[in-house]
Amino acid sequence: MDIIRPTLVLDKQICLRNIELMQQKAKRHNLRLRPHFKSHQSAEIGSWFRSLGIQHIAVSSVSMAQYFAQNGWNDITITFPFNTLETEQLNNIADNIQVNIVADNEHTLKLLNSKLNKNTGIYIKITTGYTKVGISNFSIAKIEKVLKQIHENKYLQFKGFISHADHSYDAHSKNEVQTIHFDAVQKLNNLRDHFIKKYPNIELSIGDTPGCSVSENFHGIDEIRPGRFIFYDLIQHSLGVCSLDDIALRMHCPVVAKQRVRNEVIVYAGAIHFSMSSLQNTDGKPLYGRVIITQNNENKLLSSNYYLTNLSQEHGMIKVSPALFNQINIGDIIEIIPVHCGLTAQAMGKYFTKKGESIDMMH
Amino acid sequence: MDIIRPTLVLDKQICLRNIELMQQKAKRHNLRLRPHFKSHQSAEIGSWFRSLGIQHIAVSSVSMAQYFAQNGWNDITITFPFNTLETEQLNNIADNIQVNIVADNEHTLKLLNSKLNKNTGIYIKITTGYTKVGISNFSIAKIEKVLKQIHENKYLQFKGFISHADHSYDAHSKNEVQTIHFDAVQKLNNLRDHFIKKYPNIELSIGDTPGCSVSENFHGIDEIRPGRFIFYDLIQHSLGVCSLDDIALRMHCPVVAKQRVRNEVIVYAGAIHFSMSSLQNTDGKPLYGRVIITQNNENKLLSSNYYLTNLSQEHGMIKVSPALFNQINIGDIIEIIPVHCGLTAQAMGKYFTKKGESIDMMH
Repeated sequence: MDIIRPTLVLDKQICLRNIELMQQKAKRHNLRLRPHFKSHQSAEIGSWFRSLGIQHIAVSSVSMAQYFAQNGWNDITITFPFNTLETEQLNNIADNIQVNIVADNEHTLKLLNSKLNKNTGIYIKITTGYTKVGISNFSIAKIEKVLKQIHENKYLQFKGFISHADHSYDAHSKNEVQTIHFDAVQKLNNLRDHFIKKYPNIELSIGDTPGCSVSENFHGIDEIRPGRFIFYDLIQHSLGVCSLDDIALRMHCPVVAKQRVRNEVIVYAGAIHFSMSSLQNTDGKPLYGRVIITQNNENKLLSSNYYLTNLSQEHGMIKVSPALFNQINIGDIIEIIPVHCGLTAQAMGKYFTKKGESIDMMH
Repeated sequence: MDIIRPTLVLDKQICLRNIELMQQKAKRHNLRLRPHFKSHQSAEIGSWFRSLGIQHIAVSSVSMAQYFAQNGWNDITITFPFNTLETEQLNNIADNIQVNIVADNEHTLKLLNSKLNKNTGIYIKITTGYTKVGISNFSIAKIEKVLKQIHENKYLQFKGFISHADHSYDAHSKNEVQTIHFDAVQKLNNLRDHFIKKYPNIELSIGDTPGCSVSENFHGIDEIRPGRFIFYDLIQHSLGVCSLDDIALRMHCPVVAKQRVRNEVIVYAGAIHFSMSSLQNTDGKPLYGRVIITQNNENKLLSSNYYLTNLSQEHGMIKVSPALFNQINIGDIIEIIPVHCGLTAQAMGKYFTKKGESIDMMH
């Protein structure tokens, strides 16, 4: 492939390996793997999962459920707190396939009561730590109120409890990720024990790539919903969740300018390509990507001293050593490992395989 | 318009007023207004400029030049350091219309030498401060080397010096913006004085919305290239460059959850909608947007104590007071003023007018 502008290149072999490893783990622990498709948002990449036997998926919006339903998926959980303004759209999807939604409050249920008119599964969202949404696992009274509302709606089938340990992204080590995961598993099990008599079929579903990647403890869990494991990224790497070799995406960027006075190489690829996600580098500054250059026809990953230090709308600034500065030329293509694969993919809107075939995303 | 999911709404009247004010300033100072179209990337919005008599535009990539050339623009400057890998595409555009490119080094010119085969204007990029790219205004020897290369290419016409005072975005006040602008004007004038004998037609072109919005000093300048003034945004507002009433974009977001324990309202609209741009709020924390709620059918801007405090991929977290918490309900639509209009527009990929008409962007 002749690359002439910022191009997001995907290594299909790495993706397939990442899927198979997660699938093996799911089988080992007798879990349903319901991969989260918001991380790739592509019907074609979805088909790779299907060809490996996966039948259940998670998405983050009603629009995304529509897209994947149109592409042949017939068991979809929308894991985002249900947006009641899209109930009509939900009815249309639920008319044809099995859809599950998620709620964490009575009010959403009340709004659904008058408008939902197709059979729909529902999970109650539980927060097991400082997470964005969900009912605390301790708030039994609140959960009971939501359950009461669910039962007043003849179209809703209560499925169980769902959680996503967002806070695993604030962990500082693989150990901490495991602790957070273990804590979530424990809390969900306690909840089930509390409700099991009344609801003998309660399912427990947990999310998050970090916990699902590093842990082997899934006691009592029925379903896992990791998403970002398909590509992994520098955030996952910084958590100790994957190796750099497990990361499937690279941005290929033309070198367009050099600033000798600062040993800076400027590439064509900025915030509109990578998104603005950053990690704190070992030098305390924000890191927007790790850099790979080509030397004597071989790819060479630069140390984390030399990295993508800043982004403007279309420019990326790479700090290098004086020696590297002289080796990199205007017109070269540099590969960059993105910080957040999901946001980078979303910003680019399409992928290319290493062979140059384009892979579309929704929209 | 019935809004049911995150929707970027544009106020056309504000856009037109912003354009007319900048146009009046350009006329007052006898400047060519060459608006930067990367801020909106829309053929339809471009046509509003055209209907006001504007004929010259700036863009940030060869792809964007192709898009606007196809939409009837025939004098385009690509202000990004020219990416030599796209010379063939440049030839195709320059075959039909007047295109100007920008370079800041000999190497780019050498790469152009063998491949450029259509008449093209060229500006030398000058940095007047700590900016991403450009030759320092003091480096006369370097400028002369680039000029020599330009003259060796029969297809290139040297147009003049171009600068963009990126560092005005690091200013802390309107005064500081004016100082940076004045400094850039001064340095470019000095450069012209140095080269005027040999090149009597040298043009001076300056960019950046902050400087062009607040200053009335354009001594010796031929052209201004502001872009973000069409929409303005919270970044411009924080620099003292516009009032909140000058900001033309609002994200309309459904409320999907509430966390009473933290007085937090959660909306459907996150990093994939806003981008991750933030400002430092008065409380020292990152602010991702200012919030407008509807009370008794009137829009009410919340104080900067209550703001969009955090974004995940699709969620936005709004901190409110206990009183506001009780007034905002799930299913409500909240309006948010974005931090960076260009990146937000790019993330959304399309606009809607207040009447509900959709306005497409490139791609």
